[in-house]
Amino acid sequence: MKILLKIRYDGGAYCGFQAQPNGVSVQGVLTEAFSGMFGFPCNITGCSRTDSGVHALSFCASVEPKEEILRDTQWCRVPVGKIHRAVNVLLPDDISVVAAAEVPDDFHPRYNVVQKTYEYHILRTPARDPFLHGRAFHAPRRIPEEGIALMRQTAGIFVGKHDFSGYMAAGSKITDAVRTVCAAEVEEKDELLIYRVSADGFLYNMVRIMAGTLLDCAYGRLTPDDADRALRTGDRTAAGFTAPGHGLYLCRVEYDRPVDWLCE
Amino acid sequence: MKILLKIRYDGGAYCGFQAQPNGVSVQGVLTEAFSGMFGFPCNITGCSRTDSGVHALSFCASVEPKEEILRDTQWCRVPVGKIHRAVNVLLPDDISVVAAAEVPDDFHPRYNVVQKTYEYHILRTPARDPFLHGRAFHAPRRIPEEGIALMRQTAGIFVGKHDFSGYMAAGSKITDAVRTVCAAEVEEKDELLIYRVSADGFLYNMVRIMAGTLLDCAYGRLTPDDADRALRTGDRTAAGFTAPGHGLYLCRVEYDRPVDWLCE
Repeated sequence: MKILLKIRYDGGAYCGFQAQPNGVSVQGVLTEAFSGMFGFPCNITGCSRTDSGVHALSFCASVEPKEEILRDTQWCRVPVGKIHRAVNVLLPDDISVVAAAEVPDDFHPRYNVVQKTYEYHILRTPARDPFLHGRAFHAPRRIPEEGIALMRQTAGIFVGKHDFSGYMAAGSKITDAVRTVCAAEVEEKDELLIYRVSADGFLYNMVRIMAGTLLDCAYGRLTPDDADRALRTGDRTAAGFTAPGHGLYLCRVEYDRPVDWLCE
Repeated sequence: MKILLKIRYDGGAYCGFQAQPNGVSVQGVLTEAFSGMFGFPCNITGCSRTDSGVHALSFCASVEPKEEILRDTQWCRVPVGKIHRAVNVLLPDDISVVAAAEVPDDFHPRYNVVQKTYEYHILRTPARDPFLHGRAFHAPRRIPEEGIALMRQTAGIFVGKHDFSGYMAAGSKITDAVRTVCAAEVEEKDELLIYRVSADGFLYNMVRIMAGTLLDCAYGRLTPDDADRALRTGDRTAAGFTAPGHGLYLCRVEYDRPVDWLCE
């Protein structure tokens, strides 16, 4: 038996989800909280790495005892529907467990993912917004209506099954860069532009490079044709800049089976 | 000539707008930034005091030289449409000037107000939200649908011209507590409940006590009849608790004349 967690976090203070030798990670904080709560060392496994500063509206991670021997016992002595209340007391304000579910031992929070959705948030105006500080990319100058139309056109190019080598951080060791983007849109929510993209998987920095390419197109530094060429040729230099991590949110994870989430 | 400013701030780190002997205030931070930018001492006058922790989506304040003699000169050497860019460099990330306007010397940012709108934000579920930490009241348990209906019914009671003595902090020295609430609503925005209220003026703690009364009604601790009785009798003890400042936002200020806001 494993417990799967649904977590929400502001990544501003963290070096990312994954534990790192030099830096405070979300995984590290969760490991400490759960180990403290249960009274034995726990392993936390995430559905994804996220970069430094990246946020999550709904991240999935599993928790289980580190010791093999404990896993066969009824190790979780907190009712699953109450785990969020119990552990949130031990977590800092920028990380919150919002739901939990019991999953079988062979369930893996990363390998069983069939689809993920990310959002990249862009504040359209250069005026700073204290409520979006560290939580959205602030446009250096106002993105005009035509710019939004170009962003939408570019977002449409990524939809479908493609080799995304041109939209992967240089130096990545991935050999199979084929992914299927099944939906992409640019939503306008007052002064916020939200680029939302779903795929069966994402390469390293893929959403941030797609977002940077959308921004380069909005400002006329690139055209949708350039974005298309980067996709067809795999030429990273034809695509746009890597937009900063603090605008990115992991916002949905879909599994190959139903998960019975409980939160009360 | 005075400059009127439109300001947005996260009040979490401040003792309120108004300068206090012991505490960092928004007014204090603005005074320092403008005095530094212009090179002479400036006076900042706000449209309102706000309590400790209270936020503003759109607060108005004027800036002018402290020295009488300077006021007759063309003291503002920054184009009005560029003031936000110039001063934001000197302001912390939680305070931002979003627009500025030139107003005549006899304009007063508080006395010329004809209407103000506040919002009180309530997270409906007890699950903590890292993105709303310090920015919304977190309900201790889920507010049911019937509770929202009772909140709406109670909000309706306040609309009109009433003596709001029962909705004023005990010990206030105000003698005329008659105010006209011209609009009130409870909006549902995903898991956030937004109580929005407009009036020609507000008494000390009035919105926080109204919000607390709505919450007490939502949970069945009070009825809309109790809220009505507090209004008719002026009995503060019949009204609800004073909801905490961190859920409150000043969100619109209307003046008795048009203001020519510039921001670029």
